[in-house]
Amino acid sequence: MEPTSVKKLSRETNHFLDKKVRIEGWVRTLRVSKSFGFIEINDGTFFGNLQIVFDEGLDNFLDVAKLTISSAICVEGTLVESPRAKQPFELKAEKVEIVGLCAPDYPLQKKRHTFEFLRTIAHLRPRTNTFSAVFRVRSILAYAIHKFFQDKGFVYVHTPIITSSDCEGAGEMFRVSTLDLCNMAKDETGNVNFAEDFFGKETSLTVSGQLAVETYSMAFKNVYTFGPTFRAEKSNTPRHAAEFWMIEPEIAFADLSDDMHLAEEMIKYVINYVLENAPEEMAFFHNFIDKTLLERLENVVNSDFGQITYTEAVDILKKSGVPFEYAVDWGKDLQTEHERYLTEEVFKKPVFVTGYPKEIKAFYMRLNDDHKTVAAMDLLVPGVGEIIGGSQREERLDVLVKRMEELGLKTEDYWWYLDIRRYGGTKHAGFGLGFERVLMYLTGMTNIRDVISFPRTPKNAEF
Amino acid sequence: MEPTSVKKLSRETNHFLDKKVRIEGWVRTLRVSKSFGFIEINDGTFFGNLQIVFDEGLDNFLDVAKLTISSAICVEGTLVESPRAKQPFELKAEKVEIVGLCAPDYPLQKKRHTFEFLRTIAHLRPRTNTFSAVFRVRSILAYAIHKFFQDKGFVYVHTPIITSSDCEGAGEMFRVSTLDLCNMAKDETGNVNFAEDFFGKETSLTVSGQLAVETYSMAFKNVYTFGPTFRAEKSNTPRHAAEFWMIEPEIAFADLSDDMHLAEEMIKYVINYVLENAPEEMAFFHNFIDKTLLERLENVVNSDFGQITYTEAVDILKKSGVPFEYAVDWGKDLQTEHERYLTEEVFKKPVFVTGYPKEIKAFYMRLNDDHKTVAAMDLLVPGVGEIIGGSQREERLDVLVKRMEELGLKTEDYWWYLDIRRYGGTKHAGFGLGFERVLMYLTGMTNIRDVISFPRTPKNAEF
Repeated sequence: MEPTSVKKLSRETNHFLDKKVRIEGWVRTLRVSKSFGFIEINDGTFFGNLQIVFDEGLDNFLDVAKLTISSAICVEGTLVESPRAKQPFELKAEKVEIVGLCAPDYPLQKKRHTFEFLRTIAHLRPRTNTFSAVFRVRSILAYAIHKFFQDKGFVYVHTPIITSSDCEGAGEMFRVSTLDLCNMAKDETGNVNFAEDFFGKETSLTVSGQLAVETYSMAFKNVYTFGPTFRAEKSNTPRHAAEFWMIEPEIAFADLSDDMHLAEEMIKYVINYVLENAPEEMAFFHNFIDKTLLERLENVVNSDFGQITYTEAVDILKKSGVPFEYAVDWGKDLQTEHERYLTEEVFKKPVFVTGYPKEIKAFYMRLNDDHKTVAAMDLLVPGVGEIIGGSQREERLDVLVKRMEELGLKTEDYWWYLDIRRYGGTKHAGFGLGFERVLMYLTGMTNIRDVISFPRTPKNAEF
Repeated sequence: MEPTSVKKLSRETNHFLDKKVRIEGWVRTLRVSKSFGFIEINDGTFFGNLQIVFDEGLDNFLDVAKLTISSAICVEGTLVESPRAKQPFELKAEKVEIVGLCAPDYPLQKKRHTFEFLRTIAHLRPRTNTFSAVFRVRSILAYAIHKFFQDKGFVYVHTPIITSSDCEGAGEMFRVSTLDLCNMAKDETGNVNFAEDFFGKETSLTVSGQLAVETYSMAFKNVYTFGPTFRAEKSNTPRHAAEFWMIEPEIAFADLSDDMHLAEEMIKYVINYVLENAPEEMAFFHNFIDKTLLERLENVVNSDFGQITYTEAVDILKKSGVPFEYAVDWGKDLQTEHERYLTEEVFKKPVFVTGYPKEIKAFYMRLNDDHKTVAAMDLLVPGVGEIIGGSQREERLDVLVKRMEELGLKTEDYWWYLDIRRYGGTKHAGFGLGFERVLMYLTGMTNIRDVISFPRTPKNAEF
């Protein structure tokens, strides 16, 4: 008999009621009395479990009654209405096939476990309610992002992971090499001879695909990357991982205002998509992880995002009288406490901050006419602070070269990046969105280690 | 005035005819006479160009007449019917704004360039017809793969890129490290002290996400990965790159037959999706890259894929009388020439070969009852040979451990992989699909360097 799924039973219940069905899945709970019992089975296709009712009419009643948690079983029976179960239906078993009996030392027994403990069994934690919800929402969110951009005609570009250029000096990088560490190739001057390395030069893992994808925006107009990026920073915080995924759209014939419009549209789209396509998971997060979640997300979806300049923001923060831990001063970067004050207390909704001092932003951001600030934008959201950082790019070759020289960057290393200003360049803009940051925002999960399947952090690359 | 796109004009021509529109894009060709001229503009949203007609009525007629190839312009005017142009309409310009004049040393002038030369300007080549088509199809194909799996309820898993385990010893790996190469940390015995490295142990770039994603199939039943993978092999061939993307679905409660069914369904789906969503690009590939392309793809879509065992295949090849370069012998792997003979001459359609000798396949493949072969499958397609490799996985803990020990693998390094056999394991299967291989198959492009934006190969990590 062809199996069906708990998802189908849940979404098209009337079609299946009083019909014979087959379900394959894993035992989540089992209660048994002398002559009958109940199994909650989860088949992986749906957040909720399906209740199985069985009795001593089964050939193997005694074996079924002794099933251990997480055993794999196949059940055939009739779907019937049930006033008792959490769902309005249950499966009356006619046959229960025991496919894989779970060993009795299974570490995920019914009791509650801490997230810290569950990280040590990252290969098993998606079998729990919380992580089943996290990783299904992760999948749906990734798809929502692709769907948003593809429906708008954006071209998805796989920018390189291994790179010989260092975008914006954005942070510490991991070296990628096949050199023999025990017998290091050296050149005449005693330095490491990267000519001997696999790529014939020093290479690292990318910190951003932006510079590469900018070149593609000059061919396809609207493009985006979505791939893994890396930072070798020894930050052991709940918000930093050495390996994470990032989305970077880039739009040509577009300025900072178009960029903010795109960011707002995208954020609202993906929140709506996840709310529509993972209602059970989102209800779970709201009930068990963050009681303000749905209200917070609905506020985002229904707000017109605010907008303020950095200079105005500094004024407001200074006049607020709030005893911030970090002092506010024009020219200094905003800290999370400042960002949260602006979005949570002042605007009470998401807000774009624009026009940051050029000194605290990257070389490629477009210089404003005041020659002091750049056409940058950060999107701040309640509960988190910054969630998106973007800018209009400097398309004027002379201004860009001057800025790079001020910062001591070697322009010859960026020949191809400068080329796209020489050859039919036009105004363009883009932003970066940390995928895990958005996922945390959408689920209420507060540690990045709990939204990545097998997280990589300092001193940890287990599994 | 709000811009529109050449794609919209092409797909909804009647809606726009005789209306005023604005187009932003880049000059592909320009022909000019004393009092009027034609520009073919490409705006990146569509494979085809739009013809602009302009005359000396323009304020800046003399400047427009001198526009260089690839200059960025914005044009406003009326869309009118045109019997002359390739498309049945053209844009009668009322205003041409010159946004970015292309420098005269632009390396992509109208003459034909070799693919080899274009690789040296990988940042500009998407502006050519061929690479515009390649990279738009790449994007559409990537989306088709996500859509196929998401519509079937599969959960997308981002398996780690940085890994401390070596899947199947599949090939040479790149080391990922932050150790100081000039001043190498050594332990007491003089070996490299990886305890000092970022992750506290030796780590590499992944060669496959399979082992990790298998653990998730035991929670979600149907899962897939789609991400970059790496091989540090010094193969300078048209079919090998050091960095490429791979798709790896994994399905639980499923055997080899289910696996083949999924592979066949997926291949047909993505071909149909690309044919439907990139008709202009596919016609271009058919006309200019490979005259057999559309016939070949239609044959795949309309065939029931064949199936044959490895043992039968060896028999057929031996009896064929064909003077193969490599001898055929039971126990040896099939070479591309053998694979192509089977699919092109014998079956004349895609064919699955199953039941390979265990010695030439990976440790995790399920041992058949003959104890000599494993439940592996390779999908061979005309024109290429192998395009997919998959297997049913060994779910029997004792058989798996015995096989690992035979091969000298340390079972303690795979504790989490073995755990999923202990804790409610069930039969499961999956396959791997090289994304660029499929893209080459779909486009007729014959060098992997021409389907990757910025390819990484031995001694080459430019851009």
